[in-house]
Amino acid sequence: MNSSRDSELLPTVAEVEAAARRIAGRAVETPLLEWPALNERIGGRVLVKPEQLQRTGSFKFRGAFNKLSRLVELGGSAGAVVAYSSGNHAQGVAAAAQLLGFKAAIVMPSDAPAIKIANTRSYGAEVVLYDRQRDNREAIADDLAAKTGATIVRPYEDADIISGQGTVGLELARQARARGAELDAALIPCGGGGLIAGSTLALQATWPRLPVFACEPEGFDDTGRSLAAHRRLGIVAGAKTVCDGLMAPTPGRLTFALNDRQLAGGLALSDEEVLAAMAYGFQVLKLVLEPSGAVTLAALLSGKFQGRGLTIGIVCSGGNVDPDVYARALKAAM
Amino acid sequence: MNSSRDSELLPTVAEVEAAARRIAGRAVETPLLEWPALNERIGGRVLVKPEQLQRTGSFKFRGAFNKLSRLVELGGSAGAVVAYSSGNHAQGVAAAAQLLGFKAAIVMPSDAPAIKIANTRSYGAEVVLYDRQRDNREAIADDLAAKTGATIVRPYEDADIISGQGTVGLELARQARARGAELDAALIPCGGGGLIAGSTLALQATWPRLPVFACEPEGFDDTGRSLAAHRRLGIVAGAKTVCDGLMAPTPGRLTFALNDRQLAGGLALSDEEVLAAMAYGFQVLKLVLEPSGAVTLAALLSGKFQGRGLTIGIVCSGGNVDPDVYARALKAAM
Repeated sequence: MNSSRDSELLPTVAEVEAAARRIAGRAVETPLLEWPALNERIGGRVLVKPEQLQRTGSFKFRGAFNKLSRLVELGGSAGAVVAYSSGNHAQGVAAAAQLLGFKAAIVMPSDAPAIKIANTRSYGAEVVLYDRQRDNREAIADDLAAKTGATIVRPYEDADIISGQGTVGLELARQARARGAELDAALIPCGGGGLIAGSTLALQATWPRLPVFACEPEGFDDTGRSLAAHRRLGIVAGAKTVCDGLMAPTPGRLTFALNDRQLAGGLALSDEEVLAAMAYGFQVLKLVLEPSGAVTLAALLSGKFQGRGLTIGIVCSGGNVDPDVYARALKAAM
Repeated sequence: MNSSRDSELLPTVAEVEAAARRIAGRAVETPLLEWPALNERIGGRVLVKPEQLQRTGSFKFRGAFNKLSRLVELGGSAGAVVAYSSGNHAQGVAAAAQLLGFKAAIVMPSDAPAIKIANTRSYGAEVVLYDRQRDNREAIADDLAAKTGATIVRPYEDADIISGQGTVGLELARQARARGAELDAALIPCGGGGLIAGSTLALQATWPRLPVFACEPEGFDDTGRSLAAHRRLGIVAGAKTVCDGLMAPTPGRLTFALNDRQLAGGLALSDEEVLAAMAYGFQVLKLVLEPSGAVTLAALLSGKFQGRGLTIGIVCSGGNVDPDVYARALKAAM
C-alpha cells in the first residue's frame, strides 16, 4: 500500500481548488439547476447541483480521478488500483483508471444494483464480488493489494478523494454567485462523509458561517448522531435502507474531523420520504435520482428541513438506480 | 377570435429575439448538456438542449408565454384564452395564463396522459375533455371561443407561437458558441412543426447553411414526406405511435412555409427506437424523456442519423410521461 503520507492529512480549500484544475476537461462541470415549481413548493429558492449528470452518473468520478492523477504525479506513471464499493465509487475508480491507463480491480457486494456492477465492468475493471453478510471487503481488498502491489483507493478516508469530491461544492458556490444568489443553507448527502467534508470546505470559503446539513437514511444517521455527541458513533444495529450508497457503518476518521468542525447538524430520512422524492424527481424535475441521491430533496419536500424564505443549495449526488427500484418509487407517483 | 393580423405572417429571427426578451426570467434558460458516454457511443460531439427542464416539463411554455404576452401588449390587459392540445401545449398555455392573469380553458383528448391532464388543471385552467375518434377539437374550441369571447391559442399555426418556440434554437446557438462549438447538424422533434421552424430560424442566423432534420414517428412523418414532395402531405392512414405529442395530421401552413425553405429532410423513428432512447436516457443521461422528447436521441442511437465525426445539436423537447409508459421503456433497459 504505497499511499502517500499527505493523503492522511486533512485537506484544505487550496487542495479542492487544485483538484478542480486536475479534473477540468475530464469531469463534467454539472450545471446548477432551478425549477419554478420546486421554488413555489418550498416557498424559497432551491439551487440543485445534479451530479447524476456527472461522468459515471455520480459525483464519485471527481474524487477518483483526482486521486489517480495524484498517484501519477507522485509515482511518475499509472499502475494498478484496488477499490471496494457498493457501486458508485467502483464506477468512478474504474472510469478514472481507464482514462489514465491504470489496471483496476473492484471489490463489490454481490447484492449491489446490477446496473452498478455492469457499468463498472464496462469501464474495463475486474469486478470481485463478495457476500455483504459473510465477508470483510477491506480484508479482500488488502489481500488483492498485497498480492498485486496495487494501491487501495479508499472511498472517503483519503485527503485526495475528499478534495476531489469537494469540487462539487466549489462549482456550486461559483455557479450560485454567478447568478447573484447567496446561500442561506446547504444540504448534502452523507455516507462516509467525503462529499460533504470536501464540499463544505469550498462552500464555507465563500460563505464562512454557512449552515451545512448532512442528509442520511434513518438508522444510518451515524454522522448526525456523531455530530450531536462530538464523537464517532456507529449505525443502528439491524438498520435497513433503500439508499444503497449511504450505508457506511461509521463516520470516517478524516471526514469526521472536518465534519465535526464544519457541519450544522444531520437530518435522517425514511425510505418512504426518499421514494417520494425520487417520484417528484420523475414528475417535476425530470431527473433520474437514485435513492442515495434523493435524500436532500427528501429533506426539503418532507419539511424535515424548513426552506421557507431561504436560498438553499442542495446536492443530488447520483442517478444509478435499477429499473425495479425505480418502478417502486414511481408507484408513489401514480 | 381577436387574433392579430401579423400572427398570420411568417416570423423572422428578429421576432425570435423579441420573444427571448419577453420570456426572460419567466421561462427557464435550460442548460446545454454533454455526456462523454454519449459522445463515445456516437463517435461525435452531441450537445443536448433538455427542454424537460423547462417550466411545465416541455418547450411549449415558451411559445405560450410569448403569445399571451403579445395579447397583453396588443389588447392592453389579460383576457380569456382557449387552447386544444394533447398535453404539453395545454400545460404551457395554462401556466402562462396563470402567470399573466388570463382565464384559460383547454380542450384535451380524454386519452391524453393522465399526468398532462392533472398538470394542466394544477395551473388553474378549466379542462374540457373530448373523444379523439368522435369529436373535432377545433370545432369545440371555436365554439367555446365564440361563446366566451376568448382568443384561441393555436399550437403552431401562429407567428408568435413559432417565435416563442424558436428561443430554444436561439439559446442552443448561443450556448454552443459560448463553449467554442460549431454545429455541423441539428436534430429537432417535429409535430405541427412550430419548434423546428422557429428554432431553425435562429440556428441558421448563426450557421446559415446548417442542415436541420425533422425527427418524427413512423407513419406520422408527414413533414419528412412533405419536404421530399415540396407540398403538404398528411399522415399515413391508421398509423399508431407511442409519441402522443407528435400526432399532428398534417404540417401547418405557416410552419411548412418555413420548414420547406429551411430543412434538410426528415427522419422517421419506430416505437422500438423511441423506447430504447428513453431507456438510454434513464440509464446513461439520467434525464426523464417522454416519447416525443426522445425522437432526436433515437435518430442518433439507431444510426438513422450518422453522427460520426460531427458536432450535432439535438433538442429533447419534453419529459411528461405517465409512469406506466415509462415502465414499458425501462423494460428495454433490463
